Amino acid sequence: MNVDGKQMRPIWLDPNDQSVRVIDQRLLPHTLEIMTLDTVNEVIFALQEMVVRGAPLIGATGAFGVMVAMTVNHDPDQARVECQRIKDARPTAVNLAWAVNRVMDKALKAESPENRITVARQEALAIAEEEVDNCRRIGRHGAAIVADLAAKKGGRPVNILTHCNAGWLACVEYGTATAPIYTAHDQGIGLHVWVDETRPLNQGARLTAWELGKYGIAHTVVTDNAGGHLMQHGLVDLVIVGTDRSTYTGDVANKIGTYLKALAARDNNIPFYVALPSSTFDWQLRDGIKEIPIEERDPDEVRYIQGLGSSGIESVLVPPADSPAANYAFDVTPARLVTGFITERGICDADEAAILNLFPEKRAI
Amino acid sequence: MNVDGKQMRPIWLDPNDQSVRVIDQRLLPHTLEIMTLDTVNEVIFALQEMVVRGAPLIGATGAFGVMVAMTVNHDPDQARVECQRIKDARPTAVNLAWAVNRVMDKALKAESPENRITVARQEALAIAEEEVDNCRRIGRHGAAIVADLAAKKGGRPVNILTHCNAGWLACVEYGTATAPIYTAHDQGIGLHVWVDETRPLNQGARLTAWELGKYGIAHTVVTDNAGGHLMQHGLVDLVIVGTDRSTYTGDVANKIGTYLKALAARDNNIPFYVALPSSTFDWQLRDGIKEIPIEERDPDEVRYIQGLGSSGIESVLVPPADSPAANYAFDVTPARLVTGFITERGICDADEAAILNLFPEKRAI
Repeated sequence: MNVDGKQMRPIWLDPNDQSVRVIDQRLLPHTLEIMTLDTVNEVIFALQEMVVRGAPLIGATGAFGVMVAMTVNHDPDQARVECQRIKDARPTAVNLAWAVNRVMDKALKAESPENRITVARQEALAIAEEEVDNCRRIGRHGAAIVADLAAKKGGRPVNILTHCNAGWLACVEYGTATAPIYTAHDQGIGLHVWVDETRPLNQGARLTAWELGKYGIAHTVVTDNAGGHLMQHGLVDLVIVGTDRSTYTGDVANKIGTYLKALAARDNNIPFYVALPSSTFDWQLRDGIKEIPIEERDPDEVRYIQGLGSSGIESVLVPPADSPAANYAFDVTPARLVTGFITERGICDADEAAILNLFPEKRAI
Repeated sequence: MNVDGKQMRPIWLDPNDQSVRVIDQRLLPHTLEIMTLDTVNEVIFALQEMVVRGAPLIGATGAFGVMVAMTVNHDPDQARVECQRIKDARPTAVNLAWAVNRVMDKALKAESPENRITVARQEALAIAEEEVDNCRRIGRHGAAIVADLAAKKGGRPVNILTHCNAGWLACVEYGTATAPIYTAHDQGIGLHVWVDETRPLNQGARLTAWELGKYGIAHTVVTDNAGGHLMQHGLVDLVIVGTDRSTYTGDVANKIGTYLKALAARDNNIPFYVALPSSTFDWQLRDGIKEIPIEERDPDEVRYIQGLGSSGIESVLVPPADSPAANYAFDVTPARLVTGFITERGICDADEAAILNLFPEKRAI
């Protein structure tokens, strides 16, 4: 996407040395820094420390990570072990294992180390481009929902609430939840976005607000607590979120707090959509609440908050130093609260029949 | 309450000079500082800047504020104008107008300026002591709910979730939502408290965690986003919150985000109680969502987060400097989501008949 006149993606191959470059999303919005991932440990660090995050981007990083693993491990067995370590870096997003497996399986069929690297690079690039294409299509399908609401409102701005960052920073281009927003905006539809700040890591306040601002889209940052009040008072027309993993039965794992917004949307008759590429569906799991692993992260992510202070980017401790904290990173919104999925193939209800109708080739799995 | 061996209240009259002293709650938990309120402007500052906060304490501060107004304004008409300014300092908590009116009406009946000051002091002290007594009773009634749950769990710790701070810092002693917790703990009932951090001002992480820690009660700070996930997974047995104003029909205005927790409690069949002294009921309003004024505060309270940094207490900016924010301070939980009220007279359902049955003298209003 366009950042101050420069085309950027959150991950790319450097045209000179073919090394993997990523935006360090921990420092946004106050600092735009680029990190190079030359070793498997650097790939794992980037995933675990959330230098990169968001289901499609986690997948793309895993894909390029396989290329890194093949580059530094000429022995295929060793490369396989390293790929497993990459897959284990984060448990909730299903895209990670999906992308690593796809690139690894294809690359390991090649005979020479050099060919394995080349195949891995090509396949990783293919995944990245597929995600770009998926997000473009999600944008087109989702914009129709926004257009319908705009028509109902007689052209008054459509108020969309989103949680976390499922924008281009979380994907490769366009985003998932933000793709309909960017597309509708490009179509000249008036809209305004309520951006949940998304504690503990504030991906909404830091990343979504930054993206929307750079694109010139009207938005307002609110606390995660505010959405219910906004919905009660008619200030939200539509909720769109992304997902880290959704079951083929329609349960949605997404950033912690999504479930609360889905409950409020239901209580106020507001459509609640989940935008995702099909790579984010888990075709194995039936019961999201029981079966999707929910990552527990370092409690210090809750206790310390990072921002721009008087001497640059710093962290401040909020609770008493001796109070424990817990940091559940995701929750699961049951299918019954989801109005529909916006996928690259179109929009469907959040139930097994509708999802498999859109992706019939998955019936066999 | 006991703070490191010293008895403290959030507001008191200095025994030497009879001036009003308050704990500056903006600096907790990292710094414990006392502020003196000698002028009406200082009283208003303390209320608006949330040096003091919490419905019963706002009421008590308003009551002592009338004493300050009478002290600095010997002309009763001028004192009345100053009392109105105090009442206007914060719109949502009904206790403020209630306490100011009560003290003012009584004091203005006195003939001399000196007598007005004396009457105002006595009435303010009476209100403070009544709130202490109310909170003690709320604790006793509410502890029975905790004891029931403990019995059902065969003595395993009862997990209680609370939002914001409705502790002794918000009242004068014991708290409202925390009173049943302190009382049950004193009775030897095992319990653990999930403390919502409560953005934007983090009264949960800063104040409730501090109070509970000082009292030796097991607790864990979580983001406001986490409660739904905890409830889905059986990790919450009971929700207790306070309120800034509740209608006599059972609608509950409380810190923004309370409504989301009430929805999650209902979705997971978890009892959701609201603890309040009768001074927090609004006996005039029928429809909380339509009629209770919701304070909008400075958006910078959302944009900047305060905590302990490398050089003391500092604030950091989280979103992009040019992203707007909105700061709705309260929301209203409709009566249908409230299991019951815990009052100084006992527990009742959240409906007009049950509330007026407990407070029959209010039927006439």
